[in-house]
Amino acid sequence: MSLTPNPTIIFVSATQGIPVPGQNLVYRQDITIDVDNEPLNGGILTKSVALGIDPWLRSRMVYEYKPNTPVLGYGIGVVLRSENPKFQVGDYVQARSHPFAHYAVLSEEAGTIRALKNDAGLPWTAYLGVLGLAGETAWVGYKAYAEATKGETIYISTGAGAVGSAVCQVAKAEGLRVIASAGSDTKVEFLKEIGVDVAFNYKKQDVGTVLKESGGIDIYWDNVGGKTLETVMGCMNRYGRIVVCGFASEYNLPPAEWHGNKSFFFALVKNLTINGFIIPDTIAKFGDFDFEAEVTKMVKEGRMKAREEPSDKLEDAMKMLGDCLIGANEGKGTNAKELDGQGITVLLNDAILADV
Amino acid sequence: MSLTPNPTIIFVSATQGIPVPGQNLVYRQDITIDVDNEPLNGGILTKSVALGIDPWLRSRMVYEYKPNTPVLGYGIGVVLRSENPKFQVGDYVQARSHPFAHYAVLSEEAGTIRALKNDAGLPWTAYLGVLGLAGETAWVGYKAYAEATKGETIYISTGAGAVGSAVCQVAKAEGLRVIASAGSDTKVEFLKEIGVDVAFNYKKQDVGTVLKESGGIDIYWDNVGGKTLETVMGCMNRYGRIVVCGFASEYNLPPAEWHGNKSFFFALVKNLTINGFIIPDTIAKFGDFDFEAEVTKMVKEGRMKAREEPSDKLEDAMKMLGDCLIGANEGKGTNAKELDGQGITVLLNDAILADV
Repeated sequence: MSLTPNPTIIFVSATQGIPVPGQNLVYRQDITIDVDNEPLNGGILTKSVALGIDPWLRSRMVYEYKPNTPVLGYGIGVVLRSENPKFQVGDYVQARSHPFAHYAVLSEEAGTIRALKNDAGLPWTAYLGVLGLAGETAWVGYKAYAEATKGETIYISTGAGAVGSAVCQVAKAEGLRVIASAGSDTKVEFLKEIGVDVAFNYKKQDVGTVLKESGGIDIYWDNVGGKTLETVMGCMNRYGRIVVCGFASEYNLPPAEWHGNKSFFFALVKNLTINGFIIPDTIAKFGDFDFEAEVTKMVKEGRMKAREEPSDKLEDAMKMLGDCLIGANEGKGTNAKELDGQGITVLLNDAILADV
Repeated sequence: MSLTPNPTIIFVSATQGIPVPGQNLVYRQDITIDVDNEPLNGGILTKSVALGIDPWLRSRMVYEYKPNTPVLGYGIGVVLRSENPKFQVGDYVQARSHPFAHYAVLSEEAGTIRALKNDAGLPWTAYLGVLGLAGETAWVGYKAYAEATKGETIYISTGAGAVGSAVCQVAKAEGLRVIASAGSDTKVEFLKEIGVDVAFNYKKQDVGTVLKESGGIDIYWDNVGGKTLETVMGCMNRYGRIVVCGFASEYNLPPAEWHGNKSFFFALVKNLTINGFIIPDTIAKFGDFDFEAEVTKMVKEGRMKAREEPSDKLEDAMKMLGDCLIGANEGKGTNAKELDGQGITVLLNDAILADV
């Protein structure tokens, strides 16, 4: 029996605001694991390859994590040992509740696990972004709720985020005119790179003014809610559709401080359709519209790009989670390199509050 | 050439508040018409049989009526002369823009006119209520947007109004559990008469409390918007649907005073679908779901009743329009009698602000 270090990010306590490294989250280097003998109880043991950081970890932190247990998120690992006949040693798997640690014992009871074939030979990190939850959210939400017709105009707030940028590219591929905003000029450059027709920095230009000058909006993909949603409702064309995918402006606020939206009357007079959605519910209802096959094709053909911000230090995950929530991350436009077991790629996928 | 008196309600000016008889609206007895020689210009001359008062006249007053012209609304008349081959002398017609006057020259350019066959022998006033705009709004809106499944629970605000009571009865006929509110005990009695499962007076019982005690809501038929909508959004079940048919709480308010709805976040986390609709737009998109045939059958079989408040004095229309907007009308549960050319039945169809 030999013990291997298994550095882990431990969740200590939730916070109303941004989680503080060393306080709400702690990086523990003293944790070890007996890789050869750790009991699996019908599960699998993996060595982590890549872990994804998305703003939705915020709500898991509030509603799901237990104090003094590892942070859980979407992650990819390679199987070292298996007691589950579905997974073989050497398989790469994606898990919904992957501990933020170098090694993990995973069971299907604790959250979906699926083996990744990756016949297309994409970087594994793609399965935490455009082929992971973010891409799936964009693809399925768009197919289920946008009811888009070629030539219509869509506006996407947080257009440079993992979900938003995927929506931009799906909409472009379907022949829509795409307007998108982001919270920094670097992100606006990225929006232009992926073909957005009207890209703007909402910190420098007023959303309502840009949308009105652009002739109104048929579809609004909302990632932020709050005041922005209220403004955009006033800019919708008749029969417009609003897809409420995120409400970043209020994730860190108590209900009493939620924004009072005065534009609801427009839902009536403009014959609007508004759909809020949570992705597992939506897949349960509509299916996934061939997500993996279709988006894999788009990635291979260069029609679906992602803005990723990688690190190979697990410790960085604590700060990156906070950065992601306040939007301090600045995408480098690089693809994360996969580290083949030399370390873990912690992948920052989104920048949500940046675009509120 | 002989002149016949043609008493008329004249629209003088719009008002932010409730229109004041003698000020915003004037009853003019001095107007005359030459019934035999009045030029028709390809239209028809009718003697009015019944005129309908609905809260939506409020918005026509603001956006459509020209100062010092007759009030226009849905009305029924019998054809005295015709230059339009579609309509014969003696036909009963329903017109969307019927002047509030004893006699009217109607042209199809000024608004839809249709001949009423009324093979079922229903009172003509039915064609201003359950078989008129109100019934059509209820039927088409429900079919297009409620996505109801037998056994689900629906809540209808202004349940005793013309639209609301039709929705209650359509929902009952489709096997739903129906909760409805109204603003007086008399109206609550009417709700019970038409089979509503949980009927309550919102002035005496808190909407949120009743809905929570009733186990949550799958569908909300909203006629009022504002604070009530905000409250109900907090009581929706997952996958709930909200049909925004009216926004009575804000018709008389400037935009700055519109209620700030703090419940929009629930649209996301509860996977809600919200549809605002204006009936002509919705019919253009979905068709009318065999409205007339289906609802005629319901009326004949006693499964669709209406609460009407008739008068045979045209002058009363001014006050009734105001009453309808503030909800002062108390339904008598009687059917309006049709007056066969002895006078005009002015029919008060709805009570909207009563239920805000």
